[in-house]
Amino acid sequence: MTTVNENFLKLQAGYLFPEISRRVRAFKAENPNASIISLGIGDVTQPLAPAIIEAMKKAVDDMANRNTFHGYGPENGYDFLIDAIIKNDFNAQGIDLDSTEIFVSDGSKCDTSNIQEVFGTDNVIAVTDPVYPVYVDTNVMAGRTGHINQDGRYDKIVYMPCTEGNNFIPELPKDPVDIIYLCFPNNPTGAVATKDVLSKWVNFARDTKAIILFDAAYEGFITDPDVPHSIYELEGAKQVAIEFRSFSKTAGFTGIRCAFTVIPKQLNAYTKGGSAIEVNSLWRRRHTTKFNGASYISQVGAAAACSPEGKKQCHRLIALYMTNAALIRDSLTKLGYKVYGGVNAPYIWMKTPDKVSSWDFFDRLLAKANVIATPGSGFGPAGEGFIRLSAFAAAADVKEAMRRFAAV
Amino acid sequence: MTTVNENFLKLQAGYLFPEISRRVRAFKAENPNASIISLGIGDVTQPLAPAIIEAMKKAVDDMANRNTFHGYGPENGYDFLIDAIIKNDFNAQGIDLDSTEIFVSDGSKCDTSNIQEVFGTDNVIAVTDPVYPVYVDTNVMAGRTGHINQDGRYDKIVYMPCTEGNNFIPELPKDPVDIIYLCFPNNPTGAVATKDVLSKWVNFARDTKAIILFDAAYEGFITDPDVPHSIYELEGAKQVAIEFRSFSKTAGFTGIRCAFTVIPKQLNAYTKGGSAIEVNSLWRRRHTTKFNGASYISQVGAAAACSPEGKKQCHRLIALYMTNAALIRDSLTKLGYKVYGGVNAPYIWMKTPDKVSSWDFFDRLLAKANVIATPGSGFGPAGEGFIRLSAFAAAADVKEAMRRFAAV
Repeated sequence: MTTVNENFLKLQAGYLFPEISRRVRAFKAENPNASIISLGIGDVTQPLAPAIIEAMKKAVDDMANRNTFHGYGPENGYDFLIDAIIKNDFNAQGIDLDSTEIFVSDGSKCDTSNIQEVFGTDNVIAVTDPVYPVYVDTNVMAGRTGHINQDGRYDKIVYMPCTEGNNFIPELPKDPVDIIYLCFPNNPTGAVATKDVLSKWVNFARDTKAIILFDAAYEGFITDPDVPHSIYELEGAKQVAIEFRSFSKTAGFTGIRCAFTVIPKQLNAYTKGGSAIEVNSLWRRRHTTKFNGASYISQVGAAAACSPEGKKQCHRLIALYMTNAALIRDSLTKLGYKVYGGVNAPYIWMKTPDKVSSWDFFDRLLAKANVIATPGSGFGPAGEGFIRLSAFAAAADVKEAMRRFAAV
Repeated sequence: MTTVNENFLKLQAGYLFPEISRRVRAFKAENPNASIISLGIGDVTQPLAPAIIEAMKKAVDDMANRNTFHGYGPENGYDFLIDAIIKNDFNAQGIDLDSTEIFVSDGSKCDTSNIQEVFGTDNVIAVTDPVYPVYVDTNVMAGRTGHINQDGRYDKIVYMPCTEGNNFIPELPKDPVDIIYLCFPNNPTGAVATKDVLSKWVNFARDTKAIILFDAAYEGFITDPDVPHSIYELEGAKQVAIEFRSFSKTAGFTGIRCAFTVIPKQLNAYTKGGSAIEVNSLWRRRHTTKFNGASYISQVGAAAACSPEGKKQCHRLIALYMTNAALIRDSLTKLGYKVYGGVNAPYIWMKTPDKVSSWDFFDRLLAKANVIATPGSGFGPAGEGFIRLSAFAAAADVKEAMRRFAAV
């Protein structure tokens, strides 16, 4: 008799975004003529940069010719892409990395989901609250948590609240933890971590032999020169941090699928007996066994996004989104809403008025303004009373959404 | 202190294909002028069919235009692809499937690796010997096995030998098992399962409430009209079987990345308490949480491969490979070798002469003929004394390889 992984049964019924889709579908069914604007899911809308399009067309052509055809690539990614990443994203910022420390994949959602597999199920994980639900749900599935309690939190997970009170920067945990998920610029709050903040975390991890899983998917949106783009800008971080990067938001690759994970060779985890094991080699075994490389076409496109011309073009797209972010911030502030984020991140974290719940505000906004937001409580109990607005819609749609906000 | 998943430490040092690469690199370093022909790894070499190239170019163009740009797609795949799959691959063979029963992914290696996550770690798995190493290694990582023993087998796994004696068709296990991995047409032996054989397995699974994980990645190579392409051609299979399909070999997508998994709604697994749980809904939760959809471009290409024109063109490519297979079979038979497979599968399973070990024959073949094979023992102890030759090389290379075989 085949048994199920009963940890799956601990999961809350709906993953956040499918639940939003469900409500939007129901609303559309009842209001087929409503012109809905989505500031909800963090999906890009601008077409890809010309340098990327051109490179990918050439890559398709490569596949039409026996001499340039590409079958299975290296599971960890093509050297042409890894070299471009190291040169442009790290060397340019004074960070040395070896090509064996980069693992190209088809997305950061997969990487941040799968990385926990190489660690024991006895590790205590720490996450911020609010948090990207994937970090939590994948640990629930793996059995690192207990059941969900009345507050919507899973037993055994250490939650680190990010509130107005601490400026959405989590405090160091009081009890020992083993694996710490950090995401800066943050999804959903848009908060960023300065060097001082990150250095506190790096030191904490070093002192306690913990590992930081640093999700830097939004580093391309940083405008403040003092905010680090990579955790490896901090001394000693290579001994304690894994960094996740993605082309999804920085180059508009949500439909193309390409990302990468950095695991420095110096980074160790431990057997129960106390022997140090290179996490890089564990992940290499996992990646080569369970993954077969990202699409050649996607990797060629990603390399073009790293080229000087591609980078310039992608920066222009990011600037468009950040103009949207500024417009959302300013409009909502003028309307008397309290907003956070949106300066070094494509997300605006807005406090609902009069302590209205996140989902109630979501429903109200959908019904009255036909605007989709993301309920803050979907990211954790400390997100209750907030909504997340994303700056990825077209400028005209953002303007119209702000006009409707004003009218509601 | 972060602990590692100690199950990873049970794994044998080298995954088969990286080990082959290592030996080939070493040989090349010492023999830089050797003209090496690979009949090793099962990677395609023919350029993609024109219908696929054309469709993918259009898909790249779509990404250059705001109105046709595609961001995140449905995690389970676009309807245009799912509909094409159901119509062409299943309805055409009299099998009904609902669109919610298909999960598009970026590869069958990932799918056959990840599927075990939704099942309990207490399940006893059964695999053939020889076997595609991914089935075993992913269960080792998940903790479903003990340590490896002197025979190269992991404790707690039920191995089902496939030998000349049983014509490479495994016997039903004598002891109860919970999850059975079957791959037909088989990698590595090239054996196929008739309706009679498959129906025995389906009945066995039904009687014992076990689940069959049926890897049909090579169904496109079936030439015999009596051999089923899908396990769902067998009555009752929907209640007990998950089927894995791939565009990698049938449409040359090893570098493009697209595959799909079929999980019928009728298929249940059980809690320890005996409650039936739909595996489809468990996998949906896994797939939507940990995966973000296959590349839009790859899915458009895959849909083109399902079109009448695309199918015709892909069949032509398969015919080329099968001509190679016939040549390998015939040449080696004439040379006095014993060969199996190569009729309904792109793999030829060759017995080494004089009981030479697989790796010794691999080394000898590389050194004397500069031909790369895959050592049968890399697929399990019962593969010892065999090598796998793949029919995916260019016709001229296959001819030259056979000439060299004759000379050795």
